[in-house]
Amino acid sequence: MQIILLSGGSGKRLWPLSNDSRSKQFLKLLPAANGGRESMVQRVLRQINESGLACPVTIATSASQKDAIINQLGEEVNVVTEPCRRDTFPAICLATAYLEMEAKCPMDETVVVMPCDPYTEDRYFHTIAQMARAVEAHAADLVLMGVKPTYPSAKYGYVIPGDETDGIYRVERFTEKPDVPTAERFIAQGAFWNGGVFAFRLGYLVDIVRRYMSYGSFAELRNRYEELPKISFDYEVAEKAQSVAVIPYDGEWKDLGTWNTLTDELRDHGVGNVVIDDKTENTHVVNELEIPVMCLGVKNLVIAASCDGILVSEKSQSENIKHYADRLLRMPMYEERRWGEFKVVSSSEFADGSQSFTKQLRIQAGKEIKNSVQADFDKVWTVVDGEGELEMNGITTAMHRGVTVAIARGTAHSLCATSALTIVEVEIGGKR
Amino acid sequence: MQIILLSGGSGKRLWPLSNDSRSKQFLKLLPAANGGRESMVQRVLRQINESGLACPVTIATSASQKDAIINQLGEEVNVVTEPCRRDTFPAICLATAYLEMEAKCPMDETVVVMPCDPYTEDRYFHTIAQMARAVEAHAADLVLMGVKPTYPSAKYGYVIPGDETDGIYRVERFTEKPDVPTAERFIAQGAFWNGGVFAFRLGYLVDIVRRYMSYGSFAELRNRYEELPKISFDYEVAEKAQSVAVIPYDGEWKDLGTWNTLTDELRDHGVGNVVIDDKTENTHVVNELEIPVMCLGVKNLVIAASCDGILVSEKSQSENIKHYADRLLRMPMYEERRWGEFKVVSSSEFADGSQSFTKQLRIQAGKEIKNSVQADFDKVWTVVDGEGELEMNGITTAMHRGVTVAIARGTAHSLCATSALTIVEVEIGGKR
Repeated sequence: MQIILLSGGSGKRLWPLSNDSRSKQFLKLLPAANGGRESMVQRVLRQINESGLACPVTIATSASQKDAIINQLGEEVNVVTEPCRRDTFPAICLATAYLEMEAKCPMDETVVVMPCDPYTEDRYFHTIAQMARAVEAHAADLVLMGVKPTYPSAKYGYVIPGDETDGIYRVERFTEKPDVPTAERFIAQGAFWNGGVFAFRLGYLVDIVRRYMSYGSFAELRNRYEELPKISFDYEVAEKAQSVAVIPYDGEWKDLGTWNTLTDELRDHGVGNVVIDDKTENTHVVNELEIPVMCLGVKNLVIAASCDGILVSEKSQSENIKHYADRLLRMPMYEERRWGEFKVVSSSEFADGSQSFTKQLRIQAGKEIKNSVQADFDKVWTVVDGEGELEMNGITTAMHRGVTVAIARGTAHSLCATSALTIVEVEIGGKR
Repeated sequence: MQIILLSGGSGKRLWPLSNDSRSKQFLKLLPAANGGRESMVQRVLRQINESGLACPVTIATSASQKDAIINQLGEEVNVVTEPCRRDTFPAICLATAYLEMEAKCPMDETVVVMPCDPYTEDRYFHTIAQMARAVEAHAADLVLMGVKPTYPSAKYGYVIPGDETDGIYRVERFTEKPDVPTAERFIAQGAFWNGGVFAFRLGYLVDIVRRYMSYGSFAELRNRYEELPKISFDYEVAEKAQSVAVIPYDGEWKDLGTWNTLTDELRDHGVGNVVIDDKTENTHVVNELEIPVMCLGVKNLVIAASCDGILVSEKSQSENIKHYADRLLRMPMYEERRWGEFKVVSSSEFADGSQSFTKQLRIQAGKEIKNSVQADFDKVWTVVDGEGELEMNGITTAMHRGVTVAIARGTAHSLCATSALTIVEVEIGGKR
């Protein structure tokens, strides 16, 4: 069995913590078993491992998320990156081709595709195991997860079930986002929400892909990625399939996509450097900055602070954030990278239009920044902690506390961290 | 006529904008005539000049405020700094000795002592002119301003007036902070609040000082400053005086010492990089950080952000700030200096207990940092904008965009800014 985990989206609904380079699934806010905090993607991978599914996981994502995934999940997961953003059908085709051509999986291997961001409980993964067994038993070509609805939502797709055998329902039809009265009628008929989890044999999807394109290698499919139609897996595969079954899941299933829903799942009212007085009620503060946030006598707020900005929102109003965040048009001030992370701590724009950024880089022990070249600005690195080696112009410089190196624009350089390195980078000039 | 302006206090009641080095009177938040913003001390100096008083001003303050005063008011005001913090009586004695010994004022010169922080209107300064005329006319040795009470406050001192002649009342007695019923009774009798404004002839106070100490020079008095009793001017002078008069002032007189009172006087609901949605009500945001603050659907809040921290407070609760700010125990992250200003943009503490600070320095054109020596840390300066000259170890280095200089601990250096200079300073090491 193979799992394909879909990690998409960028979005600003959790601004200022989420930004164009950090999607909501990478925010380390959820309570972890060790008392610490984990991200949505770390949580789902832990749940997969703890549920006994114990199978290889391939993450289908965009190139911009690859560094964050490796940083959070380590090198043992496979990451397949789309060359450009399309939709779930092409993304799943690409991951499937990876399993076929690179991982050399047999055609009758069971594949489960699932999103990385729903907040669920253990039973969710037991349902996934049931779905895999149904595929192995040839109950249907395609097996879906049907989430038991809790209210007549107009936001979800519905699956209308037919006959049932051993807890497996034949799918009669699908409906995308009905209006509320229709949703009520569906639910009365026993309909499920389409949970976006699909199980099938590898060969089943490979046949579908090959209808669009005959490819000789994974690289070829990836190079010709734009030839695949920009369409969702639901429309292109699920709704056209002749033999589809659905297995119900009746447990916790939440989209923690807004501050209002996310804060419901947080263990602590304050994360980070936070002071809250005893008159404050129903307020959550997430502070990624070094400086303290102090709350006095406030009610029903979510407060979030990062290098990108500071949000103070009445909880129910936090759903309107995207509208305002889109206006801000700032580059992300925090990014996770394969080698660690950086944040912008200060920026200035000068009368002549040139800009300067001061960043703090944290490079993990043993990690490397390879062949980096900036065309637009000079920079000065000053090591404030840790040790490493810098290679530039054929010269190796030992990097340790107090060492300062000027790196002119256009100069290729590589940095290897022997121990965890903290560097202050001052970028100078560069009109943008 | 001479004015002595008392600039004291440090206080955290306007945290995070006020800190141990920046008192409330230096916050540039009040609406200025040119559409910009001015501080309380800038406002009072402007009001003095515009009121037609047109006399020299001497500012009595602590050493820690001297740089901020010169930065905000320029070099033309006299600044007398206490060698240590005591109380208003010794501070006024010191300024008086300055007028006597350094400014060589005649003994019959009229001196007006006033606080720098009440928020008042033009009539306040007309009352001061009246007080000065009363001293000149020998109406009394000491003339006070009596502020017309607007409610029976238990926070203020009261002045009980006796007979009146030409709008000048003889003072019958003083009472410090009575309870509310007593205050009500006083007000019914026509009592005033003691406004902390005093007018007298220079010789009157010089005689009082010389009862404590016979000094031959201003420097001598300053050196022996600790011999003066630690007591307020009210107790030591006003309450003991034989001949005291009070002149009423019936106009705006506010202590903008809390966020709740200060925000009432602000012209804009958002100062700095601020986004406020149209559902937000009765909320003020003062943001000194570069990053944006976004408010969605909040009500009755004051939000203030600086390098020292972020406050989110229900307006009426902002009076409790000091209690919580005192717990934070952080060094000030923003300071005004005679040559400009600096802010700490990032700090790190490492496993071995050493610390690193990254600062942004802005040095005004023509200003100089003279003979600076840091004993505790090495630092690296990188110029990101402007031009200047650095003197170190007998060597002059031209400072311009892109120049980086390492300055080892213990090395004396001077920097002169030819044009406005922006420098990123990385402080390294130093266990504190």
